[in-house]
Order: sequence, then structure tokens, then C-alpha cells
Amino acid sequence: MTLHSFDTPPGARVSPPAGAPARARIHEVGPRDGLQAEPLPLDAELKTGFARGLLGAGVSSLEVAAFVHPARVPQMADAEAVVAGIGRPAPGVRLTSLVPNERGLDRALAAGADAVAAIASVTESFARENMGMTRDESLAAAVGVTRAAKDAGRHVRGYLSMCFGDPWEGPVDVSEVVESALVLAEAGSDVVVLSDTIGVAHAGQVETVLEALAAAGIPGERLAAHFHDTYGQALANVRAALPAGVAEFDASASGLGRCPFAPGATGNLATEDLVWMLHGLGYDTGIDLRALMGASDPVDRALGRTTASAVKKALSA
Amino acid sequence: MTLHSFDTPPGARVSPPAGAPARARIHEVGPRDGLQAEPLPLDAELKTGFARGLLGAGVSSLEVAAFVHPARVPQMADAEAVVAGIGRPAPGVRLTSLVPNERGLDRALAAGADAVAAIASVTESFARENMGMTRDESLAAAVGVTRAAKDAGRHVRGYLSMCFGDPWEGPVDVSEVVESALVLAEAGSDVVVLSDTIGVAHAGQVETVLEALAAAGIPGERLAAHFHDTYGQALANVRAALPAGVAEFDASASGLGRCPFAPGATGNLATEDLVWMLHGLGYDTGIDLRALMGASDPVDRALGRTTASAVKKALSA
Repeated sequence: MTLHSFDTPPGARVSPPAGAPARARIHEVGPRDGLQAEPLPLDAELKTGFARGLLGAGVSSLEVAAFVHPARVPQMADAEAVVAGIGRPAPGVRLTSLVPNERGLDRALAAGADAVAAIASVTESFARENMGMTRDESLAAAVGVTRAAKDAGRHVRGYLSMCFGDPWEGPVDVSEVVESALVLAEAGSDVVVLSDTIGVAHAGQVETVLEALAAAGIPGERLAAHFHDTYGQALANVRAALPAGVAEFDASASGLGRCPFAPGATGNLATEDLVWMLHGLGYDTGIDLRALMGASDPVDRALGRTTASAVKKALSA
Repeated sequence: MTLHSFDTPPGARVSPPAGAPARARIHEVGPRDGLQAEPLPLDAELKTGFARGLLGAGVSSLEVAAFVHPARVPQMADAEAVVAGIGRPAPGVRLTSLVPNERGLDRALAAGADAVAAIASVTESFARENMGMTRDESLAAAVGVTRAAKDAGRHVRGYLSMCFGDPWEGPVDVSEVVESALVLAEAGSDVVVLSDTIGVAHAGQVETVLEALAAAGIPGERLAAHFHDTYGQALANVRAALPAGVAEFDASASGLGRCPFAPGATGNLATEDLVWMLHGLGYDTGIDLRALMGASDPVDRALGRTTASAVKKALSA
């Protein structure tokens, strides 16, 4: 007998379940977060082709580059070339660049970036070890970037690292997350992105943190989530965040990505796995699963890696 | 700086969230389902030691063996020796053996099994390809085993294979699942175990199937779920099943397990990953995570495999 090819999730809902947002959006981070820590230099054409492939697959929100110091993140040294190579996106499609400070913002704006990601650490240890500054300095830098980017009319995603656990400190106090999120929200971030940089977050904690944020005046609609799959929890965390109104989730095609600063962390949530669940829940992400899988093939080959996406693995077998 | 060791999930809830069952139980299937398809013969002492290690880690519901034809599943030919080697469990601990028919049940009862797993297929194709019988014959066999085992005063888990997708047929109609579940429930199964043997199930489908079963008179309390992680969805499916009252979930230590009959299927949900989420949600499973990780070490070594558990991988790094 011939095996069935599962190109779409079986028994998908016609519309999202009661108590969950009517729409959900995937923010694809493969070309930036997914590649940033790869030690092997990848040329701008490969990155540009990857981004174009993702856009062709229906991705409508895409992180394309980081305007950081080239000595610090050599893989992102060609940010200008990548952004120029991708060109202007179609209407309704947003291309985001990460900028750590106002110098980076100037470069991103000059390159034509239409959305930026600012970043701050919730914990003191990660701010010092990763960013070489105090927690408050990292928040101040993110606030500076956010205000300037809003003044320039750009969409801003305000990332908060280490919302659920810190590699050195361990558990993170919910009140610290709330306090930091309020700072970024008040500075004008369009969404505050709760990041689990080391992948320890679980559904119970996600619910607790989202309840605390809602109580402090930041509803799910102002939030997005960036989960890592280090402890295998990412997708369950997405399911746990939906009822709180969170409707935007970061993911990386083929599960690309490491974390150079958080030892032990392995890989972002794979976009293919997230697509499987969201389509099954009745969301139309606009993404074609097979085209999505194909977009990361050249990158997987260039890196000599096996995909970290369970769905891509299963459907490629 | 010294890295923090995450032995327990950070920010765990004190008690389970509203709308979820007050208790949840893990049914560990590593020694049987996890090992059954391994081509390398493993000796009874290794299996017995594995089971004892799991019980020592706090596992209270454990599948230990299958009383099937040795020519069909050579790895389970030593079922009697394994059950004898484990000995009587402590009070409140249940050891289950899989039996495909009444002949297997006789062997299991003679060996002293105190709980049995009966098994039927929801789909015609899987029944024919895997079990060499029709779907109705597979249901009749499971009913026969269930009635005889209940007459003998044993706890019965009634497994339904292919509740969410079939490797040959593709999507499975919900009404077929309901119909089959009613047969096993009426025969006296203590729990009907919905199995996603090929791992394609997603949260939306789990919700739909559970709603249909509740409407047909089978509430979550009479159900358990056996999810595979082939498409990365298993843990999100557990999270989706909890609000429907399902409180018993199969998992395999270190993610042990393949499926010899369903090409493409790779591995059960890893117990460590499930423990992380359930403990985070405020459930006391009684399981010690480090001891659980240690219990599968000799098996991982004997098989020369890398663990498929994300949690075990992360905490062993």
C-alpha cells in the first residue's frame, strides 16, 4: 500500500477555538536569529535567497538582519547587503532588523529597514555577560532605540531577554519581567516580545507571567513570544499563551539557531512545527508548508546540518 | 560565573490551573513500547533493571512487557522473565502488560501481571497491515481480552491505535474514533487510550476528538492519551487534552521507542519533557527528574543512542 503524504494537518479546525485570538501571526527569525551564531561565514546571496524563499512561502513578518558591530557578530557584518538584496517587500509584509543601539538604528534606517527590534535584558547577569552593561543600561538603550525608531515612523518590536530563566541566576522573578515590560511598552514598543532565551519556560510559567502582565495593564495583544525548544516546551508554551490573547510568535525555519551567550541553549522553535499546530487550530498563517520547508534547504545544506524541525524531518523521510 | 543547574522548572505553579484536572498521572511505557522495536536483542536483566530504576524514580504506572508471539516481536520473548525479575510492586504502583489476545492474557495472568493493555485499531488499513485482521476483528479481540481480564479482576487499559491519522489512509474520521471508543468502554476498559501512533495529531484535532467523545458519553476521566512526537506536537497535545479532563498520559523515558509498523514514526513523547511541563503546571507526579534521567542511562548506552528527550539532553550538557 502507498503511504499517505501528510502535507496538511489532519482534522484541522475550521476556525480557532473559543477563548483564543481570531488571528495569529508567525514572525520568522531564521535569516537573523537562526544564522547569527553560525561560525561558518555564509555569503549575503545565500541569506538573501533564504529570505526571498521565506517570503515566497507566504511569510509576512520576517527578521532579516542585525545592525550590530561586525567584530561582535561577524555573521551579520553584511546586513546592508542583505537588506538591499531582499529589496522592498510586498504590501502588508514587514521586514525587521535588530538594532542594539542608536548607531545600529542609523545604519538600519539608512539601509531602508521598515521595522526594528530593540533588545533589553530582564536579568542583571545576562545584561552583563551578554551585553557588557547593567540591566538598567540595557533597558535605557532599548528605550532610546524605540523612541528614535518611533519618531522615524517605524514599527518596533521590544525584545526582553531571559523572561523565564537565566543561565546564571536560575529562576526569574515575575515582577522583574513586568517592570521591564512596562518600560518598553511606555517607550512605545508596538509589541513587547517575551523571550525564553534558554528554553526552560513551561506552560504553567507562561500562564503566570501573562496573568501578571495583564494585571499590570499589558494585555496579550501588546505582546509576542519568542520560545526556544531546549527543553522541548516551545509549542506547548505557544498553546498556553494563546488564551491570554498573545497572537504573535517567533519561530525559525528548520529550527535554525543557537545561542552563543547562553550555553546549553539549542535552537528556536521550528516554524514548520508551529505552522502544523496553528493550521490545525484553524489559523490561516498564509504560509505554504512545503514551500517553507524548501526555503531552508539551501541553508541546511550549506551548514551541513540535519533539520531540527520535527515536521520537516517527518515529511522529508 | 557558574551556570545555574535547572533541576526543577523555574516558576512552577503551586497548584494546577483552573479548568484542568486536580491530578495528572504519567504512564511510563519505556520498558515495553520504548524497547519493543529495537532490533538488537537486550537481555532481561537490562530490562528489569530499567523498570526497577523507573520505579525507584517514583513512576507509579508502568508498562513492563508484552505477551505477544515471540516470532512476531522477538524483543518481548522474555516477558515472563522480565515480569518475574521486577517482582511485586509497592502498594499503589501498577505494572501493565500488553496482551493482543486471550492466549497472551493467559500468559500474562500466569506471570502475575496486575494490569493489562488491550489493543485495537480504529482504521481498517492499520488493522490489516499491522495486525493481520480487519478493524472489527481487532476490536473483537480487544473486547475479548478486556472482558476476560476484568473477570479476573485486573485493571484494563484499552488502546485505540490511529485515532488521529493513519499512515496509509491519512486523516481519520472522528466518528470512527467515537464508535471504537464506545466499544472498548462498554466492554469494561478502565481507561480508553487514544493513540497517535504516527505523531501527526495537533492541539486543534485533540480538542475536536475529545469534544466528540464527551458528547458521546465518554468524558476525559475515562480516557488517557498516547502521543508521539514525530511532528513535534506531543506536549502541546497534552496541554490541549488537560482542560477536557484527560489526566493520564503515556510517555517513554529518554524518548525511547520507534514504530516498526508505521514508517516515518519516530519516538514516543519523552517522559522527562512531560515531567517538566506537568511539574511546571503544578502537578505532583511523584517522579524525581534526575533519578528518571538516570534510569534510562544504561539503556541508552546499550543501544548506543543519544537521548531523544530535550530535557535530558539539556540537563546532561
